[in-house]
Amino acid sequence: MLDTSPATAGQPLPRVASDMLYRRLAERLHEAMAHGSLRAGDRLPSVRELAKREQVSLATAVSCYRHLENLGLVEARPKSGYYVRPRAPRLAEPEMRDGTGRASRVSVNNSVMSILAAMRRPGIVPLGAACPGPALYPSARLRRLLAAQSSANLESIGRYGMGMGHPALRAQLVRRYAHADVLLEPEEIIVTIGAMEALNLALQAVARPGDTIAIESPTYFGIENQGLKALEIPTSPRDGLSLEALDLATQKPGAVRALIVMPTVQNPLGAIMPEDRRERLVAMMAERGIAVIEDDIYGELAHGRPRPRPLKSWDREGNVMLCGSFTKVLAPGFRVGYLAAGRWREQVEHLKFVHTVSTPEVLQAAIAAFMESGGYDHHLRHLREAFHSQLDMATGTVERYFPEGTRLTRPAGGFLLWVELPRGLSGLALFERALAEDIYIAPGGIFSGGSRFDHCLRINCGYPWSAEIEGALRTLGRLCHEMLAEAG
Amino acid sequence: MLDTSPATAGQPLPRVASDMLYRRLAERLHEAMAHGSLRAGDRLPSVRELAKREQVSLATAVSCYRHLENLGLVEARPKSGYYVRPRAPRLAEPEMRDGTGRASRVSVNNSVMSILAAMRRPGIVPLGAACPGPALYPSARLRRLLAAQSSANLESIGRYGMGMGHPALRAQLVRRYAHADVLLEPEEIIVTIGAMEALNLALQAVARPGDTIAIESPTYFGIENQGLKALEIPTSPRDGLSLEALDLATQKPGAVRALIVMPTVQNPLGAIMPEDRRERLVAMMAERGIAVIEDDIYGELAHGRPRPRPLKSWDREGNVMLCGSFTKVLAPGFRVGYLAAGRWREQVEHLKFVHTVSTPEVLQAAIAAFMESGGYDHHLRHLREAFHSQLDMATGTVERYFPEGTRLTRPAGGFLLWVELPRGLSGLALFERALAEDIYIAPGGIFSGGSRFDHCLRINCGYPWSAEIEGALRTLGRLCHEMLAEAG
Repeated sequence: MLDTSPATAGQPLPRVASDMLYRRLAERLHEAMAHGSLRAGDRLPSVRELAKREQVSLATAVSCYRHLENLGLVEARPKSGYYVRPRAPRLAEPEMRDGTGRASRVSVNNSVMSILAAMRRPGIVPLGAACPGPALYPSARLRRLLAAQSSANLESIGRYGMGMGHPALRAQLVRRYAHADVLLEPEEIIVTIGAMEALNLALQAVARPGDTIAIESPTYFGIENQGLKALEIPTSPRDGLSLEALDLATQKPGAVRALIVMPTVQNPLGAIMPEDRRERLVAMMAERGIAVIEDDIYGELAHGRPRPRPLKSWDREGNVMLCGSFTKVLAPGFRVGYLAAGRWREQVEHLKFVHTVSTPEVLQAAIAAFMESGGYDHHLRHLREAFHSQLDMATGTVERYFPEGTRLTRPAGGFLLWVELPRGLSGLALFERALAEDIYIAPGGIFSGGSRFDHCLRINCGYPWSAEIEGALRTLGRLCHEMLAEAG
Repeated sequence: MLDTSPATAGQPLPRVASDMLYRRLAERLHEAMAHGSLRAGDRLPSVRELAKREQVSLATAVSCYRHLENLGLVEARPKSGYYVRPRAPRLAEPEMRDGTGRASRVSVNNSVMSILAAMRRPGIVPLGAACPGPALYPSARLRRLLAAQSSANLESIGRYGMGMGHPALRAQLVRRYAHADVLLEPEEIIVTIGAMEALNLALQAVARPGDTIAIESPTYFGIENQGLKALEIPTSPRDGLSLEALDLATQKPGAVRALIVMPTVQNPLGAIMPEDRRERLVAMMAERGIAVIEDDIYGELAHGRPRPRPLKSWDREGNVMLCGSFTKVLAPGFRVGYLAAGRWREQVEHLKFVHTVSTPEVLQAAIAAFMESGGYDHHLRHLREAFHSQLDMATGTVERYFPEGTRLTRPAGGFLLWVELPRGLSGLALFERALAEDIYIAPGGIFSGGSRFDHCLRINCGYPWSAEIEGALRTLGRLCHEMLAEAG
């Protein structure tokens, strides 16, 4: 048995929560490295020795080493065996950018639209949008459920479905959130066209043109321009939104109308806000009369742990509006999201009606049937593992090929990697050079109203690992080196 | 052969464009009455005589007389036969309400929401919302196509479908509108969540908070409150929007930003704007730089005639934004609409993205497959005939039971009847009394920002005729009589 004594350094562990044997074994070895019982340069047991000692097959032992090698944790030396590579990641994590600026108008600038247009180019490597590979979703089963549900309730095709949500789907959501300590009534849940509509409705219910809303910085910026101003609050790649900065920014009564926040797996940083901070955040906002719009679309995608309690679970005043969606976790093509709007429920129902009237019932019914049938947790587990492993592979590749001075996040969930390029390099310039090589990335500039993140980029690791993706990341590294050389 | 000489009076013919034998026969008799060759009180041929003379079966002759009887055009006298009833409708048509008021804020007032809430009461007779009976839609075929399409393109379930429209659906729309002299490129068409989203996007693209938009009066008022002001333009039950009033209201440059108009089967009046007025309208608005948002959701539902040319067909400057939907004509539950935004295309694409990102692809694919398979025209013909016949039946019943002084429209299409109660009666009071009898109607007040239509109501005739619906209309008539009596 390997020594797995506690870590001496504060080294972050990319925790591999797989139930597959070789990955469990790799995780064990990885922990031993992290805790210092295996050190850089140490020779590892041979494949045969490992298999014997751990009572696994030779194939499993080989897979285990291959996996660790892919992660950049071990290296094979010809005719000698496997050795532990230098343990500390070469690249540091980005730091939280301090400083809350002035509120600026919320808008998706035109560069976002031209950036998005590039996404649809055929043959492009899709590292830009936060869209995982379609193969990760249970489309065949959803298709069967869609057929069965539309058959069982033909009439739902011929009627508007004016209600605010399909009863079966509402019931499933109530049950699911109850496990996360959020107690909802079915009637509280308004089913929307994805989380995008949910966020727009929530914002429209609480804010008027000219109002200021607090948002994370960096953040995904694609909400409707409603004549609002955004105040960017510094956000840490580890703990999420800075409560200290939020406190300062919201002390003047009436200065901020609402806060939009992703406490669980923040986009683009992948941060998870600790529980004690969640509780404090909810209390502070309630006390100051500032509505909280909680974006929970990545809520089920924390790596290797139960889903964190949503902010909504601490909400006693109906001051938190919980927004979510099945887009990232189950059925991207169905565009089914939801919203529990607390004390703005009536306004949101009204807004939903004048926005899009209702959400297609057959799609809601198919998702509810999927959840009822009990395969949802199983699917989510697999999805989380796939994302975790894909992030590991991408992290190892960025570590290997990007220039010194690059920083990158260690996301606690989801499938997005945030990279800070060495100072002087432009994310937009890299975006353009990458595009010329048929690689699509998201330049950091679009995650802020200012220029704070212009030297950053977000990498979508939602696709299964492939030589193409590895090659694309290597190319990105090369382009960075070239840009550095040109800058002299 | 019956005499079908030209009409001497200007009597409107409820034209029955059925290819069913008994209805063709009834139409022939009806024309003879309208043209004066059969007069009120005349005895009609016996069933046996009619069958022999027209070379139809006895059953057809019986059906013909039943149909005419239901329409209130003939009456059976026991042991004597069928007689022509007094020909002129007892109730007159409503007149256009003159006077363009001051612009007022666009909003769905709260009464609309509580009125809508009542709609969902179980067991209620659904004469309020503009929602036809589900049985009129080809749900079984759509279900099969949905299953086939999602099977053939499983991947569309697992991906966002960020494009602005499914290529197959865009192609079908291009083809269909080409027949109505609207020449579109597939890329011009943005597929939306119903016409509601299309209208909202169109409006948001052209207008800013504080702007004034011209709307029809009365009109369906359910669009998003975007801080806009609405200027109501008088609209005739026969010819639609008054160009004269529009002319006056838009002479001052910049006073009006956009016009929302339903030239084909206006909701709630059922008017169809004549072609020469359409052309003039498009030219006037282009000249004055006022955007035209054309709501074409009832475009395919004109009774017994080819669909009128949309305003868009005269548009040379990209100044007309054409909005439509499959909600009323094919698949209410799918919430698939569309928008050809002329010179605002880029803005609308942007807005669609931040509004709801995209429209579920599987639903678009199923609709496209339905249209490709060639059954769409056949379905539409049946739908139009059903609506026409249902309107006829409702008209006859209102004629019979509503008090003197009531006026009602003769809609040129669709399935909505607009009733003006005798002065002094309140549509809202009738709504409330009707609700107590489990009948749901739309009070006229919600079709205007002012109080101009408070004595009106809109009746949904979208459901197949039944004893329940006839009974409900009779009850409405009785309630009106009671209210009149109470008023003294």
